[in-house]
Amino acid sequence: MIIYFITSNPHKVEEVRELAADKGISIRHLHYEYPELQLDAIEEVAIASANHIRREKWAEINAPFFIEDSGLLIHALNDFPGPFSAFVFRKIGNEGILKLMAGKEGGERRATFKTVVAFCRDPDAEPSLFIGTVEGRIADRARGDGGFGFDPIFEYEGTGTTFAEMSTEEKNKVSHRSRAFTKFLNHILQHLH
Amino acid sequence: MIIYFITSNPHKVEEVRELAADKGISIRHLHYEYPELQLDAIEEVAIASANHIRREKWAEINAPFFIEDSGLLIHALNDFPGPFSAFVFRKIGNEGILKLMAGKEGGERRATFKTVVAFCRDPDAEPSLFIGTVEGRIADRARGDGGFGFDPIFEYEGTGTTFAEMSTEEKNKVSHRSRAFTKFLNHILQHLH
Repeated sequence: MIIYFITSNPHKVEEVRELAADKGISIRHLHYEYPELQLDAIEEVAIASANHIRREKWAEINAPFFIEDSGLLIHALNDFPGPFSAFVFRKIGNEGILKLMAGKEGGERRATFKTVVAFCRDPDAEPSLFIGTVEGRIADRARGDGGFGFDPIFEYEGTGTTFAEMSTEEKNKVSHRSRAFTKFLNHILQHLH
Repeated sequence: MIIYFITSNPHKVEEVRELAADKGISIRHLHYEYPELQLDAIEEVAIASANHIRREKWAEINAPFFIEDSGLLIHALNDFPGPFSAFVFRKIGNEGILKLMAGKEGGERRATFKTVVAFCRDPDAEPSLFIGTVEGRIADRARGDGGFGFDPIFEYEGTGTTFAEMSTEEKNKVSHRSRAFTKFLNHILQHLH
């Protein structure tokens, strides 16, 4: 079975392909920059994006496809930056998040990384969602050279180690994205393969 | 001539109606919550929104219409929060912006309020834009009870007075929104009336 991953990010394609290869599922990359709506939840953005692609592009793709949307939710900041994580990272970076967290201690620094996979298997149905999360806390300062985005300030639950201090392999074992991809691929394996 | 203002905010309708009444232009309010895209410039968001409404709703409206989108651009933060101002205000508020600006002094605190009006006069043409801006700086702390959103931290150019410390009448004389509306209404008066 061939499934298309619609994204402009080849690194994400590599990550899901490694997980899929173990299960005998073939992932094909379709580079297409679809519009993303300003909505308050990552789930809502992913649903709207998948539906847009389904309506506009199904005739061209003519096969099951999925998209992925991820974000960082900081509980003390009302789940900011959430679905706007990419924009906020580009504008204020890790330094900006650390400033917003100044004076916040202990449990106030809790944060969640979340990935939503939205999968469309046919042209007439709403997308199915597969959600992966990982809990952690916002570090006191950026640490580590690995990963990307907010990884240097995200300490993985209870370890004191940031995602940027972990190897790609270590991170991929526990990350929100790999958890969402794994749920999604298991579903494919059980229901469609 | 009747022109529709598509917005979910009745206060904005009042503001443009006062300006329009002086010019003999009638503004009708159409309450419709259209989707807004995640794009990097307020102008791009406004164009996309107007085009969406034009394509989806022209048959229903069947008359010239406009929308409005506004935001705060802080130069030292790479024009953050820009088109995401409403979301950022809801999540981190004025307090969050003040934290991001900690340690920034003098010219580093410069900011611009911008309004973009996107006007569609017929179903087949791209929208026309009318842009109003006002220059100022981010105050050291929130001051004043008037206005809304980021008004308490926006000091109007050279006065040391925040938009929230000015009366509605004073603010409307110089605000980004009134400047954009005035440009737009003058255009209507000269070209279409």
